[in-house]
Amino acid sequence: MTTSTALLLADLTGVAVFAASGASAAVAKRLDLFGVVFVGFVAALGGGIFRDLAIDEVPPLAFADWRYPATAAITAAAVFWLHPQLARLRTTVLVLDAAGLGLFTVTGTLKALDAQVPAVGACVIGMLTAIGGGLGRDLLTAEIPVVLRREIYAVAALVGSVAVAMLYALGLADAGWLTAAAMLVFGIRLVALRRRWSAPVATLRPPRGPGL
Amino acid sequence: MTTSTALLLADLTGVAVFAASGASAAVAKRLDLFGVVFVGFVAALGGGIFRDLAIDEVPPLAFADWRYPATAAITAAAVFWLHPQLARLRTTVLVLDAAGLGLFTVTGTLKALDAQVPAVGACVIGMLTAIGGGLGRDLLTAEIPVVLRREIYAVAALVGSVAVAMLYALGLADAGWLTAAAMLVFGIRLVALRRRWSAPVATLRPPRGPGL
Amino acid sequence: MTTSTALLLADLTGVAVFAASGASAAVAKRLDLFGVVFVGFVAALGGGIFRDLAIDEVPPLAFADWRYPATAAITAAAVFWLHPQLARLRTTVLVLDAAGLGLFTVTGTLKALDAQVPAVGACVIGMLTAIGGGLGRDLLTAEIPVVLRREIYAVAALVGSVAVAMLYALGLADAGWLTAAAMLVFGIRLVALRRRWSAPVATLRPPRGPGL
Repeated sequence: MTTSTALLLADLTGVAVFAASGASAAVAKRLDLFGVVFVGFVAALGGGIFRDLAIDEVPPLAFADWRYPATAAITAAAVFWLHPQLARLRTTVLVLDAAGLGLFTVTGTLKALDAQVPAVGACVIGMLTAIGGGLGRDLLTAEIPVVLRREIYAVAALVGSVAVAMLYALGLADAGWLTAAAMLVFGIRLVALRRRWSAPVATLRPPRGPGL
Repeated sequence: MTTSTALLLADLTGVAVFAASGASAAVAKRLDLFGVVFVGFVAALGGGIFRDLAIDEVPPLAFADWRYPATAAITAAAVFWLHPQLARLRTTVLVLDAAGLGLFTVTGTLKALDAQVPAVGACVIGMLTAIGGGLGRDLLTAEIPVVLRREIYAVAALVGSVAVAMLYALGLADAGWLTAAAMLVFGIRLVALRRRWSAPVATLRPPRGPGL
Repeated sequence: MTTSTALLLADLTGVAVFAASGASAAVAKRLDLFGVVFVGFVAALGGGIFRDLAIDEVPPLAFADWRYPATAAITAAAVFWLHPQLARLRTTVLVLDAAGLGLFTVTGTLKALDAQVPAVGACVIGMLTAIGGGLGRDLLTAEIPVVLRREIYAVAALVGSVAVAMLYALGLADAGWLTAAAMLVFGIRLVALRRRWSAPVATLRPPRGPGL
């Protein structure tokens, strides 16, 4: 198996995992079969579509390579029919989701750097690639995005994207180090899940918004 | 009347119908005049803006040709003042909306194919062109998009976009066949409305989401 | 201080003010630190990102120049820790927000015109640049966008963008006149706030939506 085949397989695994997460949320909201597949598609590919628009890689990979939408649609449809069993796999899904987070962070940041985006912007794009699908999933199901409310999730992606940008600047962005960066995100996310780490919430009485 | 004039008129009819649908939803949510016009604009032109960004046709047609935003704005403003009468036209609006769905599916898929997007991606873009405005309308009015919950709507668009992609591959994408594809979407949608067809909803107790 | 330095400072002031508005809304929704920073980022830079995608200036300025995301993030984090004090500054925030509205309207419209977007489209893009961040903020916090419901806000931006397009057509788009256009938006917004002007809301019993 060549490196690029390995990367494609890893990428499609990330797509499948995020599609499963989106589809599960859609089933819980009682959406119909189409809705479940669509939310799965957005959860799996929304972050990458935004990334590709921002770096002007058009058409976005989600439309240019049929294996991406096919993987997302098949996975989401499978969740639609199998979801009672999936409920028992909750821990597995969370672990796979953490793996997807690590992978999408690394590929997103790397693609932005390769497209000449400066380091800070590339880190933001990398993080948005990883969390964008989940944001889209929550917007479609009329929830305040969970990534904004709970747990260490986006922060793990941000740490990973900064690591990738530093490796890139040092000329160390090879397969080994990039895998390590993905593992770092994966590890932070798993530890955060296990220890129930959360980002702080403001504790004082909230002011009225500026009413604009 | 030349073909391109006919196409433009058909296109603007689609814009007007979708603008009316968005404006009606906004009136029902008690938005102000600007809100009604804005939601009408998004409902009419949001799908096309996304399509044009995805195929790198910039600026999107909604900004490049003033007749598109003007048609959307005037229609939405008319709904704002005339909406009690429109309520009695509910069936007419539904039929026109089905016509708009067929038209936007065909033009969206065709533009994507012309921009060298592979067939599967072009079908997805064509469907998104047709349903994107309605998604935007529902997001702006804080609803779970109705297209994800109810009735055969996006599926009709998907069938039409697949038909267009097949015609294109066979070299048959001429005015006659494309009109037939638009009629196919229109017909499926009307029959689905009449017979109250719906996509299936998962019937079992929903699991907890993956909690990501 | 050169003109371009002045423009950059003014631009970053707008970013800071909109970030503060987004962060305040996020604090009120009990989002965590990351959520507050993220909503601040979207409120400050979302409109500009959309503008840059629509005129094909990629990567968008929010990713291409680190000072933009840094200003947004630092301001939002400051609001997270300081928000009780900010509540007392409500009037100040509203005035600064009106200034940001004027500035973003002028720069957004001007950039679109420079990118060869026709006048009507450029006005729409200019207005979207100014109100887009607030729309994103409200979508992320699961609110119907306040700009669609209340007060003269987007309309002030629209008036300003039309003024800029007219100045541009007349060859008068120099620093003095553009500043006047920004002041016009600022003034309309302040008077609207003071007099509690609102756009009209449809008064009759709303019909059912077209149910599409």
